[in-house]
Amino acid sequence: MTLVHLVIALALVEFFVFLNAVGRARDTYHVPAPATTGNEVFERYFRVQMNTLEQLIIFVPAILLFARYVHPLAAAALGLVFILGRWLYFRAYVRDPKRRGTGFLIAVIPNSLLLLGGLIGALITLIRYPGLY
Amino acid sequence: MTLVHLVIALALVEFFVFLNAVGRARDTYHVPAPATTGNEVFERYFRVQMNTLEQLIIFVPAILLFARYVHPLAAAALGLVFILGRWLYFRAYVRDPKRRGTGFLIAVIPNSLLLLGGLIGALITLIRYPGLY
Amino acid sequence: MTLVHLVIALALVEFFVFLNAVGRARDTYHVPAPATTGNEVFERYFRVQMNTLEQLIIFVPAILLFARYVHPLAAAALGLVFILGRWLYFRAYVRDPKRRGTGFLIAVIPNSLLLLGGLIGALITLIRYPGLY
Repeated sequence: MTLVHLVIALALVEFFVFLNAVGRARDTYHVPAPATTGNEVFERYFRVQMNTLEQLIIFVPAILLFARYVHPLAAAALGLVFILGRWLYFRAYVRDPKRRGTGFLIAVIPNSLLLLGGLIGALITLIRYPGLY
Repeated sequence: MTLVHLVIALALVEFFVFLNAVGRARDTYHVPAPATTGNEVFERYFRVQMNTLEQLIIFVPAILLFARYVHPLAAAALGLVFILGRWLYFRAYVRDPKRRGTGFLIAVIPNSLLLLGGLIGALITLIRYPGLY
Repeated sequence: MTLVHLVIALALVEFFVFLNAVGRARDTYHVPAPATTGNEVFERYFRVQMNTLEQLIIFVPAILLFARYVHPLAAAALGLVFILGRWLYFRAYVRDPKRRGTGFLIAVIPNSLLLLGGLIGALITLIRYPGLY
């Protein structure tokens, strides 16, 4: 499980980088707190952060379930693709929101696989060993 | 614990459905990224997503703590009520924000019970077995 | 691990308090759903909630990794500092957004230490015992 834990920590470090980028963009584009709108480029940084947050709430439990009920190495590999996809998403989105699709897909496909794999794996385990509820 | 893991996966699948609904609403109501405002109906879909995210950050750890320190079957049952409440919240909110209260309560009550139960259960365990810190 | 679980539950109770404060601010400052803008004081409460959510998605996995790979008592202590920092952040932000820095730092420093400690601890474990993947 340690490799999967390492991948989770890397995904969270990436998110920390996105949070810092939003903080810097707040200064660069003059959007004083508590506002989150008013400058379109700042809003791109902010949306990368929010969208990554939405994906992470799925990613962290999903990769742990996949590692437990399917395979830990496959979980770690899918997790690394997720982290790469989020990085491409960040880079594309802040340049041009219309080009964010590729990075989004490269992240959302492994994330969906982790969740569906974990769900099906847990379901099969429960059917085979109902006493494990 | 497997049944609780399955309920967590189901709650995350439900959240994925809400994320997709926001993506589709972005097209339907012509709210191009990175904006999240400008159309009141789109904002309803967006707020369902954000509010569910806020509840999920509590739900996932809370159901695991409740399952460990109180009872796994009761945790799974409360989790299913939470998922149902979130679905009712989604359906009501996109039709009329004023009617979102019932679904909200049906989800927030089991979520609060999971958190308080997990907290009290962990506290009692710690008092009884201080060596388990 | 029980003490760390208790600290996680306390951090989530604190977040519940922030969610309730936003709900009350919605009424007090007349910002009907689904809007999240339109009153600057309401936006302060809302931003405390959102910023805490961003920190919690890191905090919950990070404190568990730190407890497992570094030390559970140190994890719990850093977690309590995080909770205190978030409280100071909340109190300062709703009074004057410019004064939110101190509370932010008191929370983000232990959160960063938990994440980096967990990451390095997992990495060292993996290098020492590659069979534990």
